[in-house]
Amino acid sequence: MRKQKATNVHWHDGDITRADRERLNGHRAVCLWFTGLSGSGKSTIAREVEKMLFERGIHAYVLDGDNIRHGLNKDLGFSPEDRSENIRRIGEVAKLFVDAGFIVMTAFISPYRRDRDRVRALMREGEFVEVYIKCTIDVCEARDPKGLYKKARAGEIKEFTGISAPYEEPVRPELVIDTSEEDDVRINAGKVVAFLEAKGYLELRETVAPEGAQR
Amino acid sequence: MRKQKATNVHWHDGDITRADRERLNGHRAVCLWFTGLSGSGKSTIAREVEKMLFERGIHAYVLDGDNIRHGLNKDLGFSPEDRSENIRRIGEVAKLFVDAGFIVMTAFISPYRRDRDRVRALMREGEFVEVYIKCTIDVCEARDPKGLYKKARAGEIKEFTGISAPYEEPVRPELVIDTSEEDDVRINAGKVVAFLEAKGYLELRETVAPEGAQR
Repeated sequence: MRKQKATNVHWHDGDITRADRERLNGHRAVCLWFTGLSGSGKSTIAREVEKMLFERGIHAYVLDGDNIRHGLNKDLGFSPEDRSENIRRIGEVAKLFVDAGFIVMTAFISPYRRDRDRVRALMREGEFVEVYIKCTIDVCEARDPKGLYKKARAGEIKEFTGISAPYEEPVRPELVIDTSEEDDVRINAGKVVAFLEAKGYLELRETVAPEGAQR
Repeated sequence: MRKQKATNVHWHDGDITRADRERLNGHRAVCLWFTGLSGSGKSTIAREVEKMLFERGIHAYVLDGDNIRHGLNKDLGFSPEDRSENIRRIGEVAKLFVDAGFIVMTAFISPYRRDRDRVRALMREGEFVEVYIKCTIDVCEARDPKGLYKKARAGEIKEFTGISAPYEEPVRPELVIDTSEEDDVRINAGKVVAFLEAKGYLELRETVAPEGAQR
């Protein structure tokens, strides 16, 4: 368990900024946007990353179907319009969590490139990291952890991504994790943590002066 | 600046729980739901409380018009239906922040009792604290910080709470701050912090065993 690093948190005029919160937390805030087919492993990997980060005292939070689809977005279905609105709202909530100083991870299929790019446009450079959880449809369908592919093939679920609705692969994702090649969740989550470490998200570089805050 | 208190944060099976996050933060998570007329001082007091808590190393975050109305809820207007949906979504986001371990404060007029009670019903006992920022309409109108009352009187804004739309006072708010009697923001914010302190939100009572987590 690492110690809280912030010792230079001082009162200043104006509201508390994200930079203030990053100093309090001792790490940077960022949105990791997991995208990929149903059954590719998005949520499982995100939850594992959350645990690994928590163990290091890092403030991380996962938004996924469990806490969004039955709450904030329970009024939305799976039509293209509703999927877009689903992603838009999740993007806005993720932005709030980044503003609050979190490493927030979102784990939704988010099949449309345009929707993901809109979320990216909401955030500043370096705040949005697209993590493509790549997996062939065959492997996803063989896994079928929730029995959804079976229902989609039987026509019981309409507009199912990969079967009866499109999935648009990311063009330039910041990170690709191929779970058809490697399906060990700890190894895959470790790759995400290693990425964050390499890019400097897990510490504050003191040479970067946070804007609008006293040092 | 207080030190991070959590030294007993251990890996356990299953996902990271709110109790885990509270131990990491060293304080409890709660939603302070500020309600009151436009100009009563909700947002100003909430932002001041946020600063006072931040100074003590407490993770607090304010949801208000600035970060919600132009983002998550930019598709909503001010009809009764849209106001209800506005409050519903804010309640769901507040719930996520509580789950993430925050002291989250929401600063919206939230004029309808039913909408506020619905948010209360989303949360567990002690997680939802209704803070009524009480102020006479005359004083709010005299302050008119954004010139909204003037526009409402001129008919330029329709459905303006207190003028042409109803405000339903809280029946049993956990805390009442009367800003027509006392308008010093630091004093009023201090009352909120004192309430949190008195109710034990700012520390962890070690006798309360968090559910589902190893100690």
